[in-house]
Amino acid sequence: MPAELDRFRTVRSHTEELAAPLSPEDQVVQSMPDCSPTKWHRAHTTWFFEEFVLSRWGAPYEPVDPRFRYLFNSYYEAVGPRQPRPRRGMISRPSVEEIAAYRQAVDDRVAELLEDADDPDLLATVELGCHHEQQHQELLLMDAKHLLWQNPYRPAYAERAGTGDHPTPKPVEWITHDGGLVEIGYDGEGFSFDNEGPRHKVHLQPFALADRLVTAGEWLDFIADDGYRRPELWLSDGWAHINAEGWDCPLYWDQVDGVWHVFSLSGLQPVDPAEPVVHISYYEADAFARWSGARLPLESEWEVIADGQGPPTPTFGLHPASAAPESQPGQAAQLFGAVWQWTASPYTPYPTFSPAAGAVGEYNGKFMVDQQVLRGSASITSDGHARASYRNFFPTKARWAFSGLRLARDV
Amino acid sequence: MPAELDRFRTVRSHTEELAAPLSPEDQVVQSMPDCSPTKWHRAHTTWFFEEFVLSRWGAPYEPVDPRFRYLFNSYYEAVGPRQPRPRRGMISRPSVEEIAAYRQAVDDRVAELLEDADDPDLLATVELGCHHEQQHQELLLMDAKHLLWQNPYRPAYAERAGTGDHPTPKPVEWITHDGGLVEIGYDGEGFSFDNEGPRHKVHLQPFALADRLVTAGEWLDFIADDGYRRPELWLSDGWAHINAEGWDCPLYWDQVDGVWHVFSLSGLQPVDPAEPVVHISYYEADAFARWSGARLPLESEWEVIADGQGPPTPTFGLHPASAAPESQPGQAAQLFGAVWQWTASPYTPYPTFSPAAGAVGEYNGKFMVDQQVLRGSASITSDGHARASYRNFFPTKARWAFSGLRLARDV
Amino acid sequence: MPAELDRFRTVRSHTEELAAPLSPEDQVVQSMPDCSPTKWHRAHTTWFFEEFVLSRWGAPYEPVDPRFRYLFNSYYEAVGPRQPRPRRGMISRPSVEEIAAYRQAVDDRVAELLEDADDPDLLATVELGCHHEQQHQELLLMDAKHLLWQNPYRPAYAERAGTGDHPTPKPVEWITHDGGLVEIGYDGEGFSFDNEGPRHKVHLQPFALADRLVTAGEWLDFIADDGYRRPELWLSDGWAHINAEGWDCPLYWDQVDGVWHVFSLSGLQPVDPAEPVVHISYYEADAFARWSGARLPLESEWEVIADGQGPPTPTFGLHPASAAPESQPGQAAQLFGAVWQWTASPYTPYPTFSPAAGAVGEYNGKFMVDQQVLRGSASITSDGHARASYRNFFPTKARWAFSGLRLARDV
Amino acid sequence: MPAELDRFRTVRSHTEELAAPLSPEDQVVQSMPDCSPTKWHRAHTTWFFEEFVLSRWGAPYEPVDPRFRYLFNSYYEAVGPRQPRPRRGMISRPSVEEIAAYRQAVDDRVAELLEDADDPDLLATVELGCHHEQQHQELLLMDAKHLLWQNPYRPAYAERAGTGDHPTPKPVEWITHDGGLVEIGYDGEGFSFDNEGPRHKVHLQPFALADRLVTAGEWLDFIADDGYRRPELWLSDGWAHINAEGWDCPLYWDQVDGVWHVFSLSGLQPVDPAEPVVHISYYEADAFARWSGARLPLESEWEVIADGQGPPTPTFGLHPASAAPESQPGQAAQLFGAVWQWTASPYTPYPTFSPAAGAVGEYNGKFMVDQQVLRGSASITSDGHARASYRNFFPTKARWAFSGLRLARDV
Repeated sequence: MPAELDRFRTVRSHTEELAAPLSPEDQVVQSMPDCSPTKWHRAHTTWFFEEFVLSRWGAPYEPVDPRFRYLFNSYYEAVGPRQPRPRRGMISRPSVEEIAAYRQAVDDRVAELLEDADDPDLLATVELGCHHEQQHQELLLMDAKHLLWQNPYRPAYAERAGTGDHPTPKPVEWITHDGGLVEIGYDGEGFSFDNEGPRHKVHLQPFALADRLVTAGEWLDFIADDGYRRPELWLSDGWAHINAEGWDCPLYWDQVDGVWHVFSLSGLQPVDPAEPVVHISYYEADAFARWSGARLPLESEWEVIADGQGPPTPTFGLHPASAAPESQPGQAAQLFGAVWQWTASPYTPYPTFSPAAGAVGEYNGKFMVDQQVLRGSASITSDGHARASYRNFFPTKARWAFSGLRLARDV
Repeated sequence: MPAELDRFRTVRSHTEELAAPLSPEDQVVQSMPDCSPTKWHRAHTTWFFEEFVLSRWGAPYEPVDPRFRYLFNSYYEAVGPRQPRPRRGMISRPSVEEIAAYRQAVDDRVAELLEDADDPDLLATVELGCHHEQQHQELLLMDAKHLLWQNPYRPAYAERAGTGDHPTPKPVEWITHDGGLVEIGYDGEGFSFDNEGPRHKVHLQPFALADRLVTAGEWLDFIADDGYRRPELWLSDGWAHINAEGWDCPLYWDQVDGVWHVFSLSGLQPVDPAEPVVHISYYEADAFARWSGARLPLESEWEVIADGQGPPTPTFGLHPASAAPESQPGQAAQLFGAVWQWTASPYTPYPTFSPAAGAVGEYNGKFMVDQQVLRGSASITSDGHARASYRNFFPTKARWAFSGLRLARDV
Repeated sequence: MPAELDRFRTVRSHTEELAAPLSPEDQVVQSMPDCSPTKWHRAHTTWFFEEFVLSRWGAPYEPVDPRFRYLFNSYYEAVGPRQPRPRRGMISRPSVEEIAAYRQAVDDRVAELLEDADDPDLLATVELGCHHEQQHQELLLMDAKHLLWQNPYRPAYAERAGTGDHPTPKPVEWITHDGGLVEIGYDGEGFSFDNEGPRHKVHLQPFALADRLVTAGEWLDFIADDGYRRPELWLSDGWAHINAEGWDCPLYWDQVDGVWHVFSLSGLQPVDPAEPVVHISYYEADAFARWSGARLPLESEWEVIADGQGPPTPTFGLHPASAAPESQPGQAAQLFGAVWQWTASPYTPYPTFSPAAGAVGEYNGKFMVDQQVLRGSASITSDGHARASYRNFFPTKARWAFSGLRLARDV
Repeated sequence: MPAELDRFRTVRSHTEELAAPLSPEDQVVQSMPDCSPTKWHRAHTTWFFEEFVLSRWGAPYEPVDPRFRYLFNSYYEAVGPRQPRPRRGMISRPSVEEIAAYRQAVDDRVAELLEDADDPDLLATVELGCHHEQQHQELLLMDAKHLLWQNPYRPAYAERAGTGDHPTPKPVEWITHDGGLVEIGYDGEGFSFDNEGPRHKVHLQPFALADRLVTAGEWLDFIADDGYRRPELWLSDGWAHINAEGWDCPLYWDQVDGVWHVFSLSGLQPVDPAEPVVHISYYEADAFARWSGARLPLESEWEVIADGQGPPTPTFGLHPASAAPESQPGQAAQLFGAVWQWTASPYTPYPTFSPAAGAVGEYNGKFMVDQQVLRGSASITSDGHARASYRNFFPTKARWAFSGLRLARDV
């Protein structure tokens, strides 16, 4: 099946391209418990193919190194015990070079299998592995950014392609919807994660969705208006949290000689007011929306609007770009390819959802509590990974994802 | 308005009755940050009337003690700074006796106001204060129970009225519902909290709800079947939490000579298999449901069933009672007056909800994140406080509330 | 033996007098893990007599309440398990009243025993129990002060007897000593704790000891000279600790409208520059000494000077008093009865020290690590409890004892 | 001054030899706050020469990279702010390769200076820098061992030279001393650290010192006799600590199939009963001594015995070796070159000690609190670094140093 093999090879080599600018030292350090070393991402995505593909269809299968089953399992209880997540950065060995060899060995065997594969289960599992790897490609960049930020000299991951001048963002226009009974959830023929279904009916009130993202310039206004100091704007947990942590700006923002700068994968630069704000917690998104006299959208509201706007177009970039200064009426800009957008919807299973049997069933379902759904995709999301029905999710306090917001309001 | 005055006096004196079995020493200690001393509950409920009623309608109003504004504010940012919640137990003075005098002084002035009041705002605020006080009556008992549990000799709050023999619970029968578009939320003429509205449409899938609560005996089966040791039954956060905390049974359960006992407000007693299980976290409720091949109900599912079954009947007791051994087909037992029932619904605002202006607006809205809704009421809930639309809420880890569960399933 | 009986009764009733100004609520709360509730002190000192006297000489002895053996053991491993220290404040029952009855019952039985006792072991154990109780009398006041400080309204334990006007302290004069081989340690006929012996030789360098304590006024100078902001003055651990804790003044100091106040057992009062500074950590004492171009004395230096100056005279007071404005040359003021004085000596066993057999042997020896010795006594130390050879000890970070300092220097 | 230059080059290149077996990944990870990455040790020892030698005598001096002044300062407050110790492992850049270049650049300039240097201050500072670097050579190995231990597969730093068969240790003989007035502290002509002086008199009681170290075999007996489970053997803090941490054997011990193994820099091997026990805390050393009916020596006792036994002989090894099976009467084996030996002496300044002026004065004095002195040297101590007067020091809880014990007793 040359198409599947091509796809597999493209995805696998993209991971290696993303890791290439990072030195062995960069690839081993874990900057916080939520982050993983680059080396671990490279190995874990390989383990996924070894564990779920080769050990089933590659039989009799001899593992590349039996110890990797422990070291590079992420959270699959059904597979067995594993290196504790907060201690992934303690594993200085195997080396980056040995991980590269591990990837090569597994790639060769999977490629061999795919040469003339036609078992739909096998092909579906490889497909899942590719989408899984794309998720880790984004995590790899998120985590590398977080690591580089720890360094007082703010080194860059890579140069940013020149962005030219920054268009002044146009005022928000509101895309309205009459509400009523709508359907959400994936039901196409392509790949989707289990948490995107089953497709089902939801009843909505009339609402309006902003046609672009909230910008960094608007966030500067929020700061200037004491947004971080007015308890009436905040959820109770949020107010407690920002005070305990001393948060008074997005993650990766820093003042240099009185000027707000933002750290991107290309280093520290003055905040561009036209860019979407990024790296905010749910608490901050919610407070900003309240300050704006608006609210966050429900995930269902977001999806019904996005569903009518055509598929995402590839836009990979190390930092989210500004919206175009003009727009078509009724067209929402920046749905995809800029920042993930916090929604007011907690991450819960869709009605009649049930996870797959076995270890793969641990993929999504067991995380469905105490997190919020984010919709869209980010500039660092791998091309081909986004969908209108895609449900990303993070805890309310998380800020290291490329998370921003788009406003909604009742009509 | 003698009716309102009567109501006010009844509620206020019930608090004093509940506090009466507790010594001054019992009333001052705070057993954990989530709990408050009895003395604080008695003072804070009084402060509520002073702050929201007397300071507005009692003018010119001289506060009983200006320092109480700081000491007994709970979480109202708009009122000003306050004694930090985890340090409420440090306040050995004013004494229990002085708090009683404070209550009396405020009661007298409110009573005077109510004598010939007809301002609907005033009456509504007093009504809110009474419902607020009922909530604290339940908290007072929850918190006293938690304190007494810290004492290695497990002293009782009060003797339990003889419960006679314990009926064997009947097998669960399932009350089915066809789903479709339903309405939930309060729209009657009586009192309700702001978070119970606005009434709105929700689309449901067909489902079934158990006609009684899960019992302690069924929980013993869950334990015996290694329920606390099988990761596949648990949400990921739940599995991490029970292992970190070493949880292997509900809060207040303890083995004495190999026999499971449960600590109630009447002391330590052998677990009665017919009683509803109580003092479990959301994680445990969810895991039990999964083990049962069922799931937790949505709050909307719970409400549409409860809505058809008539109003709650008074059932105050120090410990939840067993269900009757027989039941009417289609009738759900123990909806109210036994234990609060965890639902699968995160606590979010209903569509178009907006909180009231001013400090009273902080009552509910700002807590709408990272909590789960519980429905029904508990045996220690004050009479007259429950409703089918009532939304209680706690974080997933909380166990000191009288929390249990009722199963649901897809049809 | 009427003398011993009198002594016993005097000590026991002094405890009750000290507890009398504290309400039941005051007596039950534990303000931090290092502190114990008043009620617990009253019970534990009683338990000491029950455990070490009555259970041995009172046989056949029926304990007042067998549960108290667990509840009121402090740290005697040989006696068995006990209520964890940080949770002593959870024990709201038995009540203050029941504790009073417990004290009475044990007093009666001990008194009966003492009527015609002549067993020297028994008399020595009662004597130990009395000195033990005196230590807890001081702890009771230290702990009550710490509790009342938690209350934002800074209530007083009791009125302070008028101190009249405050003499201006005279400049320090230095009492010199030639050093050489000296002897320290108790070898008299009266009572002493095991840690005060054996008496042994120590070789000293020539040194000088200040003839009075460091005053609060001198501490104000230290603060004004940025003493808390200059790392070169501090031990490394001390610098880290004051920055982590935000310490910039002694415990119980607070600025009111720009004026430094100090909280005493009689409430909040402006700092009197003539008074000795009190409630400082070892780190602060050490930094102050370095700032002064001096150092802290060794405990041996302190003792050889104190040994030549006659026994302590009774001086009980709720707050340490100023030194007299004049002094005899070579006479050290304030050795006793004002504040405990930090020494540069870590708390270690004297050469050939070995603890007693059995539970009583746990009294001192097992604490001989990571603490510093303090010498002298405090204004709240019970009369008759101090000696030149007495070794008090606290960890370097502790501040809730009545701890101050006296300077020394090399000659 | 070719001798000093030779010495400088030898020391500097030894560091590089020790780092050579470690990969870039090994060299960047920090396994706990007390440990530092290899890369950091290599850079910090270089910074020491840059800061204290080149910036003074190399003028006009252009730093290799001005940012390194912040990154590689350890704890010198007088030099300025620095990368927080617990976050040294976050610094993935500069790379291992860049650090090597940094070392080379500084080495070249120091070598140039030394060519014809005769300023005694300069030569003394270079000498201090060499001894400083030797301390970090030992730390580099201690820290690398701790890191490799985090890896579940226990990789080796290097192969151990064959140790042949293990001699059975001879029974302990006791070297006695009459006590009385002795002198300790360095007063020779060679290099010593400031904390080793001034030489001064100490009065000792008669005592005896064991002529060899405690062995791993004796430690197995201690474990078998429930040494870790008997509170009467432990200091109070020690008992609390081993229970909180779950310690029941030395650090780096692990049971494999019921057999005790020890992890060394050469990997995991069965415990050899003849080897000295190593990687124990002060608490454990003290408890073992009590169990043996002995005690730990004072540092003065240790020194007066060691002083009479000739200088240490070079014995570098990755793991401490057994004592010879025979011994000369009165000769103490294993004083140096096996393990550091805990003493009963807290780390305090010698009488009339005062630290040097300026940043170098921060070297030792500011750590003189809450630590215990260890004497001797370890198998991994660099050759030429040990002396009878050398004072090493660690907190009571530390175990990652090569710390063991030798017994003493009263005579």
